[in-house]
Amino acid sequence: MRVLVIHAHPVPESFNGALNAAVVESLTEAGHTVEMRDLYAEEFAAALSAEERHRYHTIPDNLAGVEDHVAALRRCEALVLVFPTWWYGLPAILKGWFDRVWVPGVAFHLPEGGGPIRPGLANIAKFGVVTTAGAPAWFTWFYMGHPNKKMLFRGLKILCAPRAEASWLCHYNMDTATPESLQRFLAKVRTVYRRF
Amino acid sequence: MRVLVIHAHPVPESFNGALNAAVVESLTEAGHTVEMRDLYAEEFAAALSAEERHRYHTIPDNLAGVEDHVAALRRCEALVLVFPTWWYGLPAILKGWFDRVWVPGVAFHLPEGGGPIRPGLANIAKFGVVTTAGAPAWFTWFYMGHPNKKMLFRGLKILCAPRAEASWLCHYNMDTATPESLQRFLAKVRTVYRRF
Repeated sequence: MRVLVIHAHPVPESFNGALNAAVVESLTEAGHTVEMRDLYAEEFAAALSAEERHRYHTIPDNLAGVEDHVAALRRCEALVLVFPTWWYGLPAILKGWFDRVWVPGVAFHLPEGGGPIRPGLANIAKFGVVTTAGAPAWFTWFYMGHPNKKMLFRGLKILCAPRAEASWLCHYNMDTATPESLQRFLAKVRTVYRRF
Repeated sequence: MRVLVIHAHPVPESFNGALNAAVVESLTEAGHTVEMRDLYAEEFAAALSAEERHRYHTIPDNLAGVEDHVAALRRCEALVLVFPTWWYGLPAILKGWFDRVWVPGVAFHLPEGGGPIRPGLANIAKFGVVTTAGAPAWFTWFYMGHPNKKMLFRGLKILCAPRAEASWLCHYNMDTATPESLQRFLAKVRTVYRRF
């Protein structure tokens, strides 16, 4: 498979950077073709601009400035996001990738006259997430209702292929992580992505 | 009350800009002291940088570059966010405001040796949100589990005063909004914020 990996952490030598390297290596070992985009390294602009907002619904003018990201999104068969969970959600730079790249005519189609949006990314048959979170799993699920998982696997996955597979790996409790827990998680990520 | 209003829309003449103006005017008419920060107008940097990540847990070095936003957050008695809901969440620039300004020593305190974070913004007794969303209310609630409301009113409001009041106003179904529905919502926003 052709796999698009989107990485969003400002510090390359961070644990998140190690997770990203493990994902890319494991997918490559498994024979997949990997295209990795490091949003911080390429200084991706997070905020949708006024110009982009004005042409947001004008296809294909709304691709200006993000053509290469759109092309990568359209040619992949699987999408993997590697990021730290901040405030129960995506880092701003990754939220901006969705705001600016997942535009009408790419991620979805708005039927004339209204009605629910129609999916635009039927090429994506598998959607993976590798993340870390400060909060414990029980708090994230039972108190918070896991907002970022719902945003990604309910709101965005329905724009991919029907019944696209999903894979969620999260190291919760990062505030009290140990070298052992980090190594265990890294090993799990390698195992899962070698069989992706 | 001293009210901090955070606005996050790239186009000043948009409906969201009108909502922001209505909030500021109504609060002022009601006798409140309003401090409004327009994140797009001041070109607020959305992405937490590598330098900021390195000093994230070092108090007070972690305030460098966002001192004025931290000061505004600490002196307000109420906080109001005015923004469009994009992909069930905050626009990247507003998510970045939380990532970069709601840092340790400001929004929360991490007890030594671990354990849950402790609230840092007891000065905020009221938390208001005025937003718009393309999706219908039923879809946002029942299918999506309303991720941005949970992120804001569960995850972040608990860092404010105990039992801080919350006010949520959302125009859903923006994709099929009419001039009448927009005017009705604007009038509702004025009514609520005149009595805020």
